[in-house]
Amino acid sequence: MNAIDDMIRLLKRLPGMGEKSATRLAYHLIRTDESYNKALGDAVSTIKERIHPCPVCGCYTDQDICQYCSSESRDRSLLCVVEEPQDVISIAASGAYNGLFHVLGGAINPLDGIGPDALSFPALLRRIEEGSFKEIIIATNPTEEGDTTALYIRHLLRSKPDLVLTRLASGLPIGGDLGYADKLTLARSMKGRVKL
Amino acid sequence: MNAIDDMIRLLKRLPGMGEKSATRLAYHLIRTDESYNKALGDAVSTIKERIHPCPVCGCYTDQDICQYCSSESRDRSLLCVVEEPQDVISIAASGAYNGLFHVLGGAINPLDGIGPDALSFPALLRRIEEGSFKEIIIATNPTEEGDTTALYIRHLLRSKPDLVLTRLASGLPIGGDLGYADKLTLARSMKGRVKL
Repeated sequence: MNAIDDMIRLLKRLPGMGEKSATRLAYHLIRTDESYNKALGDAVSTIKERIHPCPVCGCYTDQDICQYCSSESRDRSLLCVVEEPQDVISIAASGAYNGLFHVLGGAINPLDGIGPDALSFPALLRRIEEGSFKEIIIATNPTEEGDTTALYIRHLLRSKPDLVLTRLASGLPIGGDLGYADKLTLARSMKGRVKL
Repeated sequence: MNAIDDMIRLLKRLPGMGEKSATRLAYHLIRTDESYNKALGDAVSTIKERIHPCPVCGCYTDQDICQYCSSESRDRSLLCVVEEPQDVISIAASGAYNGLFHVLGGAINPLDGIGPDALSFPALLRRIEEGSFKEIIIATNPTEEGDTTALYIRHLLRSKPDLVLTRLASGLPIGGDLGYADKLTLARSMKGRVKL
């Protein structure tokens, strides 16, 4: 059974994949179409060759410049600053934003040894300097690290009073239930309550 | 982003993999070691070439004959009949069984059009005829289909009164809690209660 054991051992290294899930997946792959296995295997093998960070914004792309940075139809007066490349996809998929993006590569987290030097602030400042942005939307996560990073960006941009700085709203998730909301989220949604 | 979208589309076809999990996994794979991706991709691409059903028992193997059928140390008077190849692994891993296995390839399920002809009963009968089994342990699932299949095997072997037929015990899972047990399991564990 060595080929299956090897497969299970490799699958178990994926995030959120325990012994049972990995075993189930391995047996599933023995039953699927050979053409599907080849396609998936090839995609996994070559993903790192085909994908690289966009040299402008830092999101992942298989083009020279990503689809957002090279788009003619996006609003070049708006810049949305996010922590990770996948945040770009989430925000783009929400349909509520049509500006450009900037990926920091994480959030400031002194406990994990991630200081401002580890993130792409110089590129952010250069883009703001050279671009024609009117508003910077800070869309770091609603966590302590994300909040710290947002404050740091405000500090970096203190010499640009004409630039509007905003932060994504925090509060109750849509479709959520007050009873299931954690205290911090509830407190923040109370503090940030809006007029009806 | 086509290479990532392709990857997500392929990953979403795996069982239990929704849009969010597939996206998370795809982004994880962009960050992992290239050597890991190559190893996993290769394992996925080639698993069907390397694994085939054991011609004797039907469990998956990368050898001519599987490790259980070819083992010198297993008890050849015991035969455990299971539905699927992965059930062999589960039972072998329990450490409570040291006999041989037979994989039926499913359970009788008229609603899904799976009759006895679709399962490996002829091979089972031939092995029992040619082997020296004293006990057949029917380890089909504790479901209606598994029970039907167990009864069918009893019917098939009615002309062999010396052969002991047993079925895996059903009841409360170890470490479980009465409050969380479903009614059917509780009823079965009551009906099958054992002397202390």
